Amino acid sequence: MSTPKIARHETRKISRDAIMRAAPDELAVEEPLEIRISGEPIAVTMRTPGDDFELAAGFLCTEGILKSADEIGAIRYCGDEKHPDLRNVIDVTPATGVKLDLARHKRNFYATSSCGICGKAAIENIRTEAKPLNGKFRVKLDVFYRLGTSMRSAQTVFEKTGGIHAAGLFDLNGTLESLREDIGRHNATDKVIGRMFLDRKLPLDRHILMVSGRASFEIMQKALMAGVPIVCAVSAPSSLAVEFASETGMTLVGFLRSDQFNIYSGAERIEI
Amino acid sequence: MSTPKIARHETRKISRDAIMRAAPDELAVEEPLEIRISGEPIAVTMRTPGDDFELAAGFLCTEGILKSADEIGAIRYCGDEKHPDLRNVIDVTPATGVKLDLARHKRNFYATSSCGICGKAAIENIRTEAKPLNGKFRVKLDVFYRLGTSMRSAQTVFEKTGGIHAAGLFDLNGTLESLREDIGRHNATDKVIGRMFLDRKLPLDRHILMVSGRASFEIMQKALMAGVPIVCAVSAPSSLAVEFASETGMTLVGFLRSDQFNIYSGAERIEI
Repeated sequence: MSTPKIARHETRKISRDAIMRAAPDELAVEEPLEIRISGEPIAVTMRTPGDDFELAAGFLCTEGILKSADEIGAIRYCGDEKHPDLRNVIDVTPATGVKLDLARHKRNFYATSSCGICGKAAIENIRTEAKPLNGKFRVKLDVFYRLGTSMRSAQTVFEKTGGIHAAGLFDLNGTLESLREDIGRHNATDKVIGRMFLDRKLPLDRHILMVSGRASFEIMQKALMAGVPIVCAVSAPSSLAVEFASETGMTLVGFLRSDQFNIYSGAERIEI
Repeated sequence: MSTPKIARHETRKISRDAIMRAAPDELAVEEPLEIRISGEPIAVTMRTPGDDFELAAGFLCTEGILKSADEIGAIRYCGDEKHPDLRNVIDVTPATGVKLDLARHKRNFYATSSCGICGKAAIENIRTEAKPLNGKFRVKLDVFYRLGTSMRSAQTVFEKTGGIHAAGLFDLNGTLESLREDIGRHNATDKVIGRMFLDRKLPLDRHILMVSGRASFEIMQKALMAGVPIVCAVSAPSSLAVEFASETGMTLVGFLRSDQFNIYSGAERIEI
């Protein structure tokens, strides 16, 4: 069932001398994935194929639908030789006796609207669900300086296509434990978290999550649900990401370079 | 009801000499917006406040729910002095006698799953809905070269925060007609299209849409629904964006610089 992450395409390149040349190009693959629980569709996400079980498990974990990998009976592709058209559909069957709160996903969506869909309501909602964060450690400055280089050197699809996000999970010494690339930053995050969730390694309370590009509310929410206390972004955080980090006690670092960065929240975890 | 697009935050900056200094920073505002039709919630999007009516109208247009601005009776914020908690909720009331197909949005979501949620099904679905594209013109090379500079100089929020996307609508001479900035590229696109939709200027069949960052399936779909024949991206397109453009006859340009770019589809509209 494996679909490639990179597609080849005959592209026309206009060069500096204003001449058009045909040249092969490599594109990051984008395809939908539908996640079902016991046959019922829960979500569709546009993703880069690969690590789909991790994506499904990670999504269900960070959305609060699954609390533990023990609740999973089976994860499988709905497609097979007879139904190749279902290759982008994944079904998760709960373990015997487990009843999942499928309404929660919808409730999450609508809970906000009943109280006015403000950021504060959304933050409060998630804060009550999330595990308490580990605050009893400090990470050295030079660990942060090395994260970007370490992540980029592991990004094989970005190297070829220039069009894909990444999420990396590091230990507190800055060693990369896991990296996933996906056209959606939230999917890359779910894939990284999903692998650890399936390996029963949550909460990730002695880990650093790093994402390419920006840090949004959604990324912070997913990190908190997995118990990750420190999130680093290559680029800017949004206002709500910062607000969320401040109110939930997370450390949020942005514009992370090899010799400088900004701390938006939780500076006490960083050893200057 | 106006909310600022930029939030100030006291940030700690780690500089090259490894010293931490407090410094004010400007962040792109991220807040949810719920779009309702006659009180029924249709979608929630994380967006940067501003041009919310355009965003709602553009979203309903590019999703195929609204065909014409004449179908709109009123657009209003649900919040007021008595209900400040509803300031991020917008309600669209259809004009008298107009019945909107609210099921379409959900159908769009599930139509794909019944036939296996592959890109081809999604493309076919949208192709049958979209207006035919204008193919009877050619745009000069140097028009493309100027788009990036023109767009960047109009991006005031990006200038300050470094954390926001933009969508620009240009005429065939490369003159910027409209630009919107939003934390979501798809929202910026909906805002630009929504303004033109409300002004009854669709189809935008003699226009170029340019987006910051990458070009995804979603952006191409929105452009096609508005009749835009040419889409340019600062960075890479996804495989499905290229496939979509090829199959629907759109021109797709990526990695657009001031003196070079790649053509992924529809080179016949470009005069070399």
